[in-house]
Amino acid sequence: MTTIGIIGASGYSGLELTRLLLGHPQVTLDFLTSDRWVNQSVEARVGLPSAQRYVTVEQGLSRAAGCDVVFLATPAETSLELVPRLLAAKTRVVDLAGTFRLKESSLYPSFYKLTHADPSLLAQSVYGLPELFRERVVGQRFIANPGCYPTAAALSVAPLVKEKLLELDSIVITAASGVSGAGRKATEDYSFMEIDADYRAYKVLSHQHTPEIEQTLSVVAGQPVSLVFTPHLLPIKRGILSTAVVRLREGVSSGVVQQAFERAYAHEPLVSLRSGADAVRLADVVNTPKALVGVTVKGRQCVVISAIDNLLKGAASQAVQNLNLMMGFPETAGLR
Amino acid sequence: MTTIGIIGASGYSGLELTRLLLGHPQVTLDFLTSDRWVNQSVEARVGLPSAQRYVTVEQGLSRAAGCDVVFLATPAETSLELVPRLLAAKTRVVDLAGTFRLKESSLYPSFYKLTHADPSLLAQSVYGLPELFRERVVGQRFIANPGCYPTAAALSVAPLVKEKLLELDSIVITAASGVSGAGRKATEDYSFMEIDADYRAYKVLSHQHTPEIEQTLSVVAGQPVSLVFTPHLLPIKRGILSTAVVRLREGVSSGVVQQAFERAYAHEPLVSLRSGADAVRLADVVNTPKALVGVTVKGRQCVVISAIDNLLKGAASQAVQNLNLMMGFPETAGLR
Amino acid sequence: MTTIGIIGASGYSGLELTRLLLGHPQVTLDFLTSDRWVNQSVEARVGLPSAQRYVTVEQGLSRAAGCDVVFLATPAETSLELVPRLLAAKTRVVDLAGTFRLKESSLYPSFYKLTHADPSLLAQSVYGLPELFRERVVGQRFIANPGCYPTAAALSVAPLVKEKLLELDSIVITAASGVSGAGRKATEDYSFMEIDADYRAYKVLSHQHTPEIEQTLSVVAGQPVSLVFTPHLLPIKRGILSTAVVRLREGVSSGVVQQAFERAYAHEPLVSLRSGADAVRLADVVNTPKALVGVTVKGRQCVVISAIDNLLKGAASQAVQNLNLMMGFPETAGLR
Amino acid sequence: MTTIGIIGASGYSGLELTRLLLGHPQVTLDFLTSDRWVNQSVEARVGLPSAQRYVTVEQGLSRAAGCDVVFLATPAETSLELVPRLLAAKTRVVDLAGTFRLKESSLYPSFYKLTHADPSLLAQSVYGLPELFRERVVGQRFIANPGCYPTAAALSVAPLVKEKLLELDSIVITAASGVSGAGRKATEDYSFMEIDADYRAYKVLSHQHTPEIEQTLSVVAGQPVSLVFTPHLLPIKRGILSTAVVRLREGVSSGVVQQAFERAYAHEPLVSLRSGADAVRLADVVNTPKALVGVTVKGRQCVVISAIDNLLKGAASQAVQNLNLMMGFPETAGLR
Repeated sequence: MTTIGIIGASGYSGLELTRLLLGHPQVTLDFLTSDRWVNQSVEARVGLPSAQRYVTVEQGLSRAAGCDVVFLATPAETSLELVPRLLAAKTRVVDLAGTFRLKESSLYPSFYKLTHADPSLLAQSVYGLPELFRERVVGQRFIANPGCYPTAAALSVAPLVKEKLLELDSIVITAASGVSGAGRKATEDYSFMEIDADYRAYKVLSHQHTPEIEQTLSVVAGQPVSLVFTPHLLPIKRGILSTAVVRLREGVSSGVVQQAFERAYAHEPLVSLRSGADAVRLADVVNTPKALVGVTVKGRQCVVISAIDNLLKGAASQAVQNLNLMMGFPETAGLR
Repeated sequence: MTTIGIIGASGYSGLELTRLLLGHPQVTLDFLTSDRWVNQSVEARVGLPSAQRYVTVEQGLSRAAGCDVVFLATPAETSLELVPRLLAAKTRVVDLAGTFRLKESSLYPSFYKLTHADPSLLAQSVYGLPELFRERVVGQRFIANPGCYPTAAALSVAPLVKEKLLELDSIVITAASGVSGAGRKATEDYSFMEIDADYRAYKVLSHQHTPEIEQTLSVVAGQPVSLVFTPHLLPIKRGILSTAVVRLREGVSSGVVQQAFERAYAHEPLVSLRSGADAVRLADVVNTPKALVGVTVKGRQCVVISAIDNLLKGAASQAVQNLNLMMGFPETAGLR
Repeated sequence: MTTIGIIGASGYSGLELTRLLLGHPQVTLDFLTSDRWVNQSVEARVGLPSAQRYVTVEQGLSRAAGCDVVFLATPAETSLELVPRLLAAKTRVVDLAGTFRLKESSLYPSFYKLTHADPSLLAQSVYGLPELFRERVVGQRFIANPGCYPTAAALSVAPLVKEKLLELDSIVITAASGVSGAGRKATEDYSFMEIDADYRAYKVLSHQHTPEIEQTLSVVAGQPVSLVFTPHLLPIKRGILSTAVVRLREGVSSGVVQQAFERAYAHEPLVSLRSGADAVRLADVVNTPKALVGVTVKGRQCVVISAIDNLLKGAASQAVQNLNLMMGFPETAGLR
Repeated sequence: MTTIGIIGASGYSGLELTRLLLGHPQVTLDFLTSDRWVNQSVEARVGLPSAQRYVTVEQGLSRAAGCDVVFLATPAETSLELVPRLLAAKTRVVDLAGTFRLKESSLYPSFYKLTHADPSLLAQSVYGLPELFRERVVGQRFIANPGCYPTAAALSVAPLVKEKLLELDSIVITAASGVSGAGRKATEDYSFMEIDADYRAYKVLSHQHTPEIEQTLSVVAGQPVSLVFTPHLLPIKRGILSTAVVRLREGVSSGVVQQAFERAYAHEPLVSLRSGADAVRLADVVNTPKALVGVTVKGRQCVVISAIDNLLKGAASQAVQNLNLMMGFPETAGLR
């Protein structure tokens, strides 16, 4: 059995990761850290059989060298501090924070309010979006697990980018997320009174996931891609729906577009193609590890809508998918 | 006192219209039709003092000639049938349906599934979006009241179009509406079980409000404008939030954009400018007759977000605003 | 004009009170205190025309002697401190906190975690539930405004108690409140993630409103009444629905019960009788100053359901009703 | 493998039953009927691997004799018609409708609007509430699966009844259910617009689950029990929370009550005792096959709160629990 540690097991993503790994057939949980629940029973919190109790981060770190893989479901600053220590301990790492996703260190001060003292670590991380970069993940030791919006957004547009079917400067992505995307929050802004029956955009033209989506699509395109990304906050708990509007290159037909998506996803176990952009519903994907994608074309106008559970394909289940690829397990092991 | 009739007073827009007109200081309600509530007390249904009872449409029509203004809050096909009869009776008309909004009759079969036997009526209607076309509404006798999405979308982009600050072919509008936008629905699709905690797009690249927004912006631009409009369904009761993403013309600064919006709206009683696109919240505008607009610029990227209550500024309160302009009342009479 | 001060104007009840008093025809607002919004514009926060800015509590107190009436929408401990100072300044007081509602000072340490240094003040306060004690409120100078649950619960059972139609030891009241009842909360417990789609009881057999309901019904009965009260938390913003189950005295018919409610409420401007217990809906009363009451009888089993908006009839609009009675204004002035 | 048929597989309970049985290790699904989805793929609807397609009821019935067990998740009238045909075919039956739960046939015309032509069938059915009547279910051929409210309500009060700790005439049960309890509804009453942010009681003193709860508790008590049951409709999708208020017999202490609940449930795999009545939260039980129970005592006042997922322990998972007992499988097989 592969032994696993989870640092940050009481956040919403950490909880989902715990549930998935408790049910993973090739895995044993060695430690789970949670400052808020230290010494409490994992079973009581997660509702699944487990003999574990939560430990402190330092207690977890002291056991990390004995683990095959450690997952970090921590704030970006915590990952910045802990990942080097874990790598030094020769432990494999899957980091769910954004700290090591961007290759360009100069983006971190403005988008993440942090500075990489050792930017060489950025070159070591592998961006773990399996449907686009599967072969790079296999056997790796340090995975930067993609963000929730970047997963949904990149999956929606990548087939068009890859096959050069769209005008690269035309990409406009508008997305909406459930509240769990913000993590556990004890602030008035995220109180029921402020969220219920409301809807609004946030971090307009300044969200940290914009350069992440651009980086992914640039790799796929083989040239720089920039786009406009506008996130919104939905009065629901879970799920992200991403609506990409792009202009097709002249002469690209609806049939060609449809075929590009089928080539990309027909054989993917965790992506389902729907019959059109408006056949993608958030409710169909919440609590599942899958992404849904649908595309509608009219002339050169093209709308691609994708949906994921932000805590699963946007975080925890994608981390397990990466674990499976790292370790040579079946890619959907532990994901039902 | 101006005497008023309402046809279709039990739909969600009709109910709001009834509430507003019962409190309007220059108005007396002469009749209200509702097939579902015939003979029932208006006071019991609306919760405001009224001696009226709902009547049938035919009973209403028989009284229309004696009214100064008749409002139609009816399905498009009903307006198609009734408006000519009302105009023939020399009654002023405010039609809340989409039947007479588009000037180009050839759009109706595909977008509204109806055919105008007498397209000359389309030329007689005045499109009542006061903030853009106030002077055309004053004193008129036949107003096509704008749609909900078109009100929010046109108000957001019009200042940029008018002052030629954007690239006209770059407009991408993504919007989300509460469920009341669909009207009273006794279908499984609009049941609580199907709507709650879900979010999805609908009528992608085929919504009937697309040509309406394009028509309005074309008038403002003085040349044809086309755009991509993608509506979504929110799991809330009321409100529309519209997110417009456009590319500014080269050299247009953030300050110039800001000034354009101030020139357009600083003196408008029913439009409030917010400090940025993410300062526009749906909850701030629901149950009010106002529109909120906020703009954020980064380089040539520009996001304009607007919000309205779809049943008020998107329907009933805008109809009252048009009534006030038609009759020479203060523009916000009856709107608090 | 009567001059008014509000201490604690930025809580949910304080905001509603501000809205009502800004629209009250016989009233001028002299000051509004809010620690969180000091110096901010009232108009910006409340959305209604006002030249006021929020001041500190001390600034407010320095103006209190010049006001005719001061409202406190403050935590219980704050009222305990401020009410004596206001009464000493010869200002009339309406206190929305629970601090002076109970006549028995020994209940305060356990139910409110506070001690009355001067219990004689408890004797001076008048419990302002107009439908039950109207004549006691008229002309008074110090009103303890009832709690939200106690208003709903007492109105539901009082007619049966008054006319001795029920077995006094049989009263079981189960109620459910929207989240605003807890006030502004920046805690994880009241976050959207914790509240949405959940439902639970709280403070079972220990809620501070239990002795308040018992006190009211004891006054009506002319003898001690005890009961079981169980509050629940609804995943909605506003509204309280109270379900009282009682056993009728032998021989009391459904008709007699119905007549008792009609005698009690047929002429009340702010209570509406419904046709039965299941005809009382929360949605019909939210955003209104009214209480709804409905009763259903089967043999000796009797269920009385009542509903109010917890921030209005359960707090702010009832405070205005009390103001009107204190000052001799029409009882519904400022309440539409 | 045990072969199974499901009649009524597209209702909300039928869908949950399908999901559970597709994952049950000892079971093969032979047919699933759904009038609305005839010929559609089960996998497409349920999202789990399956080679089945939905068939008509008549097609299902023609295969029933070859099945070991047939489940009915049908309206009461349908069960009335089909159960005799299935029993005649020597098939074991688990009926999720209310048709065969009550032993007293005279209750059916008023509570279910149906008449039992052959009341002897009522004597054949076994009421399948395993925690109370496990030994009666083992090996049986015809199970009447309990209602959702009756499961929650009976589990909460039964330990007190069994050990004669309460006054039998004092039971008052007030409960609240999510909307799925009403089944698939294409009516305006169950539209999002009518349900969201509302809360109300229904069928006050006339709900068909009242005699079912009374029957269960009477069996436990060994004497007739009557009570008041008041159901409410929550603006959420799933879950029932039941609040029982009872009077303890003189001299019964809190400790004795606590021990009674521990004796009843400490060894039950699908009931969890919580530390008190207000430690029972709906969110903890939704999407699980468990019941939560918590009790709080103050003097002779006693509040017992229980919660279940109405579609699982209140319907589908309890049906699987009954299947397991009928067939001699481990009681929680297929229930995780």
